[in-house]
Amino acid sequence: MKNKNFENWVKKRKAHLKKMSPEEIFDQLKKGDRVALSSGITLIESQNESHRMDANVLIQKCLPLSGHSIRIGITGVPGVGKSTFIESFGKILTDNGHKVAVLAVDPTSSISGGSILGDKTRMHELSVNENVFIRPSPAGDNLGGVARKTRESILLCEAAGFDVILIETVGVGQSETVVKSMVDFFLLLMLSGAGDELQGIKKGIMEMADALVITKADGDNIQKSKLAAREYKNAMHLFPPNKNNWTPKVLTCSSLKGDGVEDVLNVILEFKAQLQNNGHFNEQRKEQDKMWMLETLKELILNDFFTDDKMILELKNIQKEVVNEKISSFQAAENMYKIYKDERRV
Amino acid sequence: MKNKNFENWVKKRKAHLKKMSPEEIFDQLKKGDRVALSSGITLIESQNESHRMDANVLIQKCLPLSGHSIRIGITGVPGVGKSTFIESFGKILTDNGHKVAVLAVDPTSSISGGSILGDKTRMHELSVNENVFIRPSPAGDNLGGVARKTRESILLCEAAGFDVILIETVGVGQSETVVKSMVDFFLLLMLSGAGDELQGIKKGIMEMADALVITKADGDNIQKSKLAAREYKNAMHLFPPNKNNWTPKVLTCSSLKGDGVEDVLNVILEFKAQLQNNGHFNEQRKEQDKMWMLETLKELILNDFFTDDKMILELKNIQKEVVNEKISSFQAAENMYKIYKDERRV
Repeated sequence: MKNKNFENWVKKRKAHLKKMSPEEIFDQLKKGDRVALSSGITLIESQNESHRMDANVLIQKCLPLSGHSIRIGITGVPGVGKSTFIESFGKILTDNGHKVAVLAVDPTSSISGGSILGDKTRMHELSVNENVFIRPSPAGDNLGGVARKTRESILLCEAAGFDVILIETVGVGQSETVVKSMVDFFLLLMLSGAGDELQGIKKGIMEMADALVITKADGDNIQKSKLAAREYKNAMHLFPPNKNNWTPKVLTCSSLKGDGVEDVLNVILEFKAQLQNNGHFNEQRKEQDKMWMLETLKELILNDFFTDDKMILELKNIQKEVVNEKISSFQAAENMYKIYKDERRV
Repeated sequence: MKNKNFENWVKKRKAHLKKMSPEEIFDQLKKGDRVALSSGITLIESQNESHRMDANVLIQKCLPLSGHSIRIGITGVPGVGKSTFIESFGKILTDNGHKVAVLAVDPTSSISGGSILGDKTRMHELSVNENVFIRPSPAGDNLGGVARKTRESILLCEAAGFDVILIETVGVGQSETVVKSMVDFFLLLMLSGAGDELQGIKKGIMEMADALVITKADGDNIQKSKLAAREYKNAMHLFPPNKNNWTPKVLTCSSLKGDGVEDVLNVILEFKAQLQNNGHFNEQRKEQDKMWMLETLKELILNDFFTDDKMILELKNIQKEVVNEKISSFQAAENMYKIYKDERRV
């Protein structure tokens, strides 16, 4: 019942904030108001052009306050226990006085309709903790767009005073590469005794991991997990060394009993200290900034084309010709491109 | 030894073809010359601008001769036995008088360095069959680029008279979506008794499959495979029906013994007949053409920017400012975009 009232209050608050300018949202957001933060992210996720403009204003205002956090990517196949781990890990973080934001990148949600973090009850303890902000993966069938929205959301969360950003993703190849490109530390959760097929598919992702954690290391599983940990340690020796001089760690933990979860935090703190010391922490963020500048630029350029009324009209006509097999898709693209170039010369 | 001579001959042939114009390559290619086909694909894969222009000429010449094939996507996790299946499936196809081209889309190759189809000896019988053309996945860290190159390669293979195009991809999420968007029929290979994690990760991909084949159904595995097949049949009943009215089939096969492999071919022929009958076969290709026209167009537009000397120079300067933290990556992108827009007004 109490919960119901809270939700109604959030609805009212959001309706109120909708009418607010980005400046007004920012004023609430920087005080750590989670509803304002959530409304800000809604602006970022909106396809509406005027919302996008408001979102850009909001991002610009948040930028000076952003960056003062550790960004942690967490991945692993469905069933590895990401939510349970985050629930347990998040509690330790807040117990240590941190403010934790949990975001998600989920490319499969557009295919299968399912979405990680869609169901907050999977993390019911965290979701009611006032020092925690949880946001499901933005919808969208384009991983690039989802990624940009998530990256912009990170900046808003940081401006709202959240100093630990957890970014959950599901284990399907491309999405890890994207998450890796927006985090400081990349954590791979794995099950003990998972089949070789799984190891095979995970090789490229294991190479990206700063730490590998064997989950569900409790009860009858403890020995199997320790064995798996040893095997992974040996396997990771074969990988080329990281240019940041960090040697990936392998741990085991039980999210349910809480065993080993604090060790994960200590490894991350050790990582941060070491890389801030040898300069690679900022080095990596600069590299990421350069890459993200290009991504944003590409989106702006394409947007400039695909929001131009004349181009939209020409596109409709040419698509008809493609569908009626009057012209090949490649020729059609070339023709559209010529029209675009001529426009530029006007 | 004989093989060595053949390779030397191929080298000489390629060196000769390198000096040929796209028109000359086309004249050889349309006669089914595999070396000319391979040189044509090399043009497509080249980053060199003049090669790209030659490639476009070649593609335009191939387009009228393309399309007369069935395009089959084949996926499954490493270890499922893709190569062994393709070796056995390819033999049946050629025995039935088909000419088979095997291409690959492998996004992991750029991460882990490994590449599927990299080692032709994995399909040594096929690779020496004169009615078969095998091409490894093009290199490149950008899935979109790899996908375009593969799609353009399909057209060349079809123009060279190959009437069955097999496109192999490794089971890592995003790549299946891309392959699905360029094939008529999507085949998912699975192992019996693979862990739930694997099923979980594959849900989105199972929804894309037109047929699901349990491999390695021989010896002690037969019963397990039949059981798995039954389970998958039940699971797939839960998926929303395809708009093309095709009900995905579930089969078992042993690539080594050859059991059930011909059934896969029959299912594909049944699929083609049914969808050509209800019009969805061309419908799907038209949808794919429209989507690919947009992809090609996006690439042309971005290329126009990223090959402009003035833009390259400005980009270098702005990236310096980003790295020196004089400016945020978002602001930098906005500034670059303004410069680009002003250029357009010239």
